[in-house]
Amino acid sequence: MPVGTQATVKAVTPGELAEVGARIVLANTYHLYLRPGAEVVERAGGLHEFMQWHGPILTDSGGFQVFSLSARRKITEDGVRFRSHLDGSEHLFTPESVTRVQERLGADIIMAFDECAPYPAEKEYVREAMERTHAWAERCLSAHTRQDQALFGIVQGGVWPDLRRQSARFLGSLDFPGYGIGGLSVGEEKGQMAEALEAAISELPENRPRYLMGVGAPEDVLDSIVAGVDMFDCVLPTRNARNGGLFTPAGRLNIRNGSFREDLLPVQSDCDCYTCRNFTRAYLHHLFRAEELLAYTLATVHNLRFLIALVERARGAVLRGELSDFRERFLEGYSPTDPEARAMNRRRRRAAVWD
Amino acid sequence: MPVGTQATVKAVTPGELAEVGARIVLANTYHLYLRPGAEVVERAGGLHEFMQWHGPILTDSGGFQVFSLSARRKITEDGVRFRSHLDGSEHLFTPESVTRVQERLGADIIMAFDECAPYPAEKEYVREAMERTHAWAERCLSAHTRQDQALFGIVQGGVWPDLRRQSARFLGSLDFPGYGIGGLSVGEEKGQMAEALEAAISELPENRPRYLMGVGAPEDVLDSIVAGVDMFDCVLPTRNARNGGLFTPAGRLNIRNGSFREDLLPVQSDCDCYTCRNFTRAYLHHLFRAEELLAYTLATVHNLRFLIALVERARGAVLRGELSDFRERFLEGYSPTDPEARAMNRRRRRAAVWD
Repeated sequence: MPVGTQATVKAVTPGELAEVGARIVLANTYHLYLRPGAEVVERAGGLHEFMQWHGPILTDSGGFQVFSLSARRKITEDGVRFRSHLDGSEHLFTPESVTRVQERLGADIIMAFDECAPYPAEKEYVREAMERTHAWAERCLSAHTRQDQALFGIVQGGVWPDLRRQSARFLGSLDFPGYGIGGLSVGEEKGQMAEALEAAISELPENRPRYLMGVGAPEDVLDSIVAGVDMFDCVLPTRNARNGGLFTPAGRLNIRNGSFREDLLPVQSDCDCYTCRNFTRAYLHHLFRAEELLAYTLATVHNLRFLIALVERARGAVLRGELSDFRERFLEGYSPTDPEARAMNRRRRRAAVWD
Repeated sequence: MPVGTQATVKAVTPGELAEVGARIVLANTYHLYLRPGAEVVERAGGLHEFMQWHGPILTDSGGFQVFSLSARRKITEDGVRFRSHLDGSEHLFTPESVTRVQERLGADIIMAFDECAPYPAEKEYVREAMERTHAWAERCLSAHTRQDQALFGIVQGGVWPDLRRQSARFLGSLDFPGYGIGGLSVGEEKGQMAEALEAAISELPENRPRYLMGVGAPEDVLDSIVAGVDMFDCVLPTRNARNGGLFTPAGRLNIRNGSFREDLLPVQSDCDCYTCRNFTRAYLHHLFRAEELLAYTLATVHNLRFLIALVERARGAVLRGELSDFRERFLEGYSPTDPEARAMNRRRRRAAVWD
């Protein structure tokens, strides 16, 4: 799912989104509640009408965002009191209020209000956050009235496999139509994430979609599909694009690099996106150096198409029973960003949740 | 002509440009010479290939830009020595070098190298600049070798009708395939501009296109078409768009204004552009407040369509012999920006020639 935090996927039109093959986009409850306000979106006919995206939309609950406000929020059993990052005004999010806001925004899939514990955190704290998340999940279910929206629960439990299993078991018993797996890819080691993910999935119902929240690096997406994940969202393709980081089957290139100044190849020769069908690396290099807005559009179009084409091909491989071959072939050619750069990206993501 | 200074019309793709009905775009020799360099554009197959705009392109000669560098340039009879606004490096533009650069960029219409005198300026200085412009025009003609490009001369002469007539007569005698009228809309009164324009046109050949450089406010465009102008370029529609200033038949509105927060109408009800066919003022207001890149794209698409639809309709009125009726009907409904705001816009345009 491309991320459209503020009811727009940054730098692209809904038409361009459809053209890259996006099937569903994500928007954020926290941001839209603060600006323009749920009532404005509701009066406009809901998010689909407001942003003119006629495919499915998922709204995140805002849990991740309010907990990232660390100094500006206070957690109680009832909910979270926080100050707006826009104007400092005070607000209260409860499972009931967040569910109501999401009903007014009108997405097709809405998320339960959860507490995403930071990493690192004491196991005892992570357990408490998980238990609050469970209690809140039940309250979201009770509060939810719109039968045309699917409400997903969110599994928490940090990096502890036993907590992850416990959380998945509990939420599974509540019979949600789908499940988010939250609180991963927030700074932990790759191996810790894999273990926690596996533990969660082992206890989730087989016949419900599993959505790994905030994960989007190509290698992580493939590993997670192998582990049994069905849905992803991440700002990585769009944010990297705006910084000049473009995905290719060989890894990420930075188009601002001087070596591309006269490079007349497309970003990726076998890519079918508007950018690669029409423009050279030299032109994109020029647009980035000249700080032209078209740079962000063309780069975003390519990165979104790269990720979406990747999951389209992975889906085909799943259906043919060839997923692990597909994954291996892809990873043979692909150099992921080095671990240090990954860790920095994560810290940055954590710090700047306002993408 | 939408302005694509750095080989891109800011915030829109070539596809979006074609969709608003653009028939020709302008790019700038000064900017492209400095970055990415004429050799890069040439190796890419010329501007059309580089920026993927397959309609006609006109390149301005860079005269207006280097003369706007005031403190950073020195004029001699041979040409202009100037320092780059990017890195301070020193360069020399001569009629011959500018013609050569434009041949390498490969536009369909290229402009002679001219000296655009500032406003206000002593008549004696304006006369000297005009005479230099005439000598340079002859040198450009001699230097020009590409038969597939039309080289336009540029009439100068400031606000003095006698100089304008003299300039038009001289350049007319050189038999250019078309004529720019430069050095207007640079801060002079509306009446002064009208007189100078009329004087120039009275001496230009009837059967050659006349291009009024840098003019683009709807009311000025209509007045100038009545006066006999055929072509325009201006950053006004695109720059205003990025500041939230949107054209409508009633005048310009600022979409950032709080009154649009819940306004579910399109920017202009009878506009056929992508923006007006799909989005509400409330959504655009939100995008501008949230500083989302899509704001600039949607606003630019609308403003370009507004201006292009205006000249399309004016063209129809010319063919039916109803231009002055058309102009009157349009101006009855339209409130131009007040003179003070206009003057400020001009000063800003003069200061920021890098758009």
